[in-house]
Amino acid sequence: MSSCSVLVVAGTHGNEVNAPWLLQQWQASPDLIDAAGLAVHRVIGNPEALRRCCRYVDRDLNRCFLPEQLKRGASGLEFQRAGELLRLHGADGELPCAVAIDLHSTTAAMGNSLVVYGRRPADLALSALVQGALGLPIYLHEADAQQTGFLVESWPCGLVVEVGPVPQGLLSARVVEQTRLGLETCLRVLDQARQGLVRLPDALVVHRHLGSRDLPKSEHGKPKALVHPDLQGRDWQNIAPNQAMFRAADGTERGEGWVEGEIPVFVNEAAYVEKSIAFSLTRREVWPVEPTWLPALQQLLRAA
Amino acid sequence: MSSCSVLVVAGTHGNEVNAPWLLQQWQASPDLIDAAGLAVHRVIGNPEALRRCCRYVDRDLNRCFLPEQLKRGASGLEFQRAGELLRLHGADGELPCAVAIDLHSTTAAMGNSLVVYGRRPADLALSALVQGALGLPIYLHEADAQQTGFLVESWPCGLVVEVGPVPQGLLSARVVEQTRLGLETCLRVLDQARQGLVRLPDALVVHRHLGSRDLPKSEHGKPKALVHPDLQGRDWQNIAPNQAMFRAADGTERGEGWVEGEIPVFVNEAAYVEKSIAFSLTRREVWPVEPTWLPALQQLLRAA
Repeated sequence: MSSCSVLVVAGTHGNEVNAPWLLQQWQASPDLIDAAGLAVHRVIGNPEALRRCCRYVDRDLNRCFLPEQLKRGASGLEFQRAGELLRLHGADGELPCAVAIDLHSTTAAMGNSLVVYGRRPADLALSALVQGALGLPIYLHEADAQQTGFLVESWPCGLVVEVGPVPQGLLSARVVEQTRLGLETCLRVLDQARQGLVRLPDALVVHRHLGSRDLPKSEHGKPKALVHPDLQGRDWQNIAPNQAMFRAADGTERGEGWVEGEIPVFVNEAAYVEKSIAFSLTRREVWPVEPTWLPALQQLLRAA
Repeated sequence: MSSCSVLVVAGTHGNEVNAPWLLQQWQASPDLIDAAGLAVHRVIGNPEALRRCCRYVDRDLNRCFLPEQLKRGASGLEFQRAGELLRLHGADGELPCAVAIDLHSTTAAMGNSLVVYGRRPADLALSALVQGALGLPIYLHEADAQQTGFLVESWPCGLVVEVGPVPQGLLSARVVEQTRLGLETCLRVLDQARQGLVRLPDALVVHRHLGSRDLPKSEHGKPKALVHPDLQGRDWQNIAPNQAMFRAADGTERGEGWVEGEIPVFVNEAAYVEKSIAFSLTRREVWPVEPTWLPALQQLLRAA
């Protein structure tokens, strides 16, 4: 068993149904996605939530990969499932994987994109290779104490492929195809990296997480205004400083004053309503690729 | 109590959250929607489903208005609620209403549209007046034994305002505004009809229901192909006869052979997955307005 196996996860959120369908189709038709000779393990992240077509049963599985809580056996279906996935496919698991690709969808107009958590060199190498191949935008999520415990952080290397917009619970041929393309590209560049056949681009373009904004709320916690229609669907785009963020039912605009250069992502993601996030703000940064990144990835892929 | 009161229903499906939010805002700000002097009763159709943010608890409320089942006290939360709404606001209820406007949203790209059930003259008069004012397309649902028991059919006059696309459970300023416009227009033309200040357009354009198509399914009932991406979002549009209906994950196209003139609606509505409907087919028809329609509506509105 080589530890350079790749874990492909779909249905970490049970109402994101496109990637699970893609994986079922792949299982039925092995030629559907070229695994580039890599050993791939496919799993449904949260089968019970998928069965119920809800995001989760007790708690968001993609916030349950918290080593402290897992060590002390935190209760609930999703903490149990997180522990199970690590015992099965963690770096020291029964069928160990070095890399985790976690396939998600969103109601926001994120297009085909990557989400990277923090600045681990192997993650940055993999995302730079995918960006070099497909040009996908990258949301770099870091330094957010409110949002922790993401699945891919528990593997030595990992990223999220995030595709939208698509309603929860709805199969979309376009979203399936974008997911297929993102996944197949991840696998191809991992194989090329393993074989020493790649070089990284000179630069990595990331959208670095700055923070999140919620809708204006009443004292009872009800929204008083909604995401402005001129902001809806403008994920990844530069916003004029005078663009209002929100609009009330009577047309009143609220929340002016974009900071120059702040770029929204996850605009009106349905699942973030409960997290009090109407959208997140990022800054586009161009990072020189560090010479340490690719070797970090290659070391993981070559480890016996 | 005049029986010409109008019942405005939001949240008949608990995961269609935009109309309920609009009604809350209207309650807080009475000027938000001009009721044109009409006596309006606002209700949340399925409060428990809205609380849970799911379409329904036991059964689709908008298929529960079945006189036979209601008479014999069929069990389940939604049958109970249907009976309750009729006892409270039916034509012979405690606070009787002659007209019901039922506000819905859809994941399909239906835009701002009306759904009319059958050919009751008062319904056709009301929809002709709204179409004359706003130009909205009308889906005429009839002769479908698989789909019965719609709410508005239990009032002497009624129609559905259907707005999309919007994911389930997600507030959208655009959808709220379209719903507000549709509702306010219904109320304005009802008042004008009551006062004898309207004439109907010469013709009514309807999209008459012909039938529905489901995705190609495996023997286990799993989709083998999805709605073709070139069909997605093309509700109300003429489709070329050689347009494929479905596409498999490997790109294989299926389901060719549109009948000339068949026009799809409710393309990929999330809630219809369980009803085995990928989209419905309609035929666009231009009907001369009958002289009986407007008097039928006016009689209801003037009845003491």
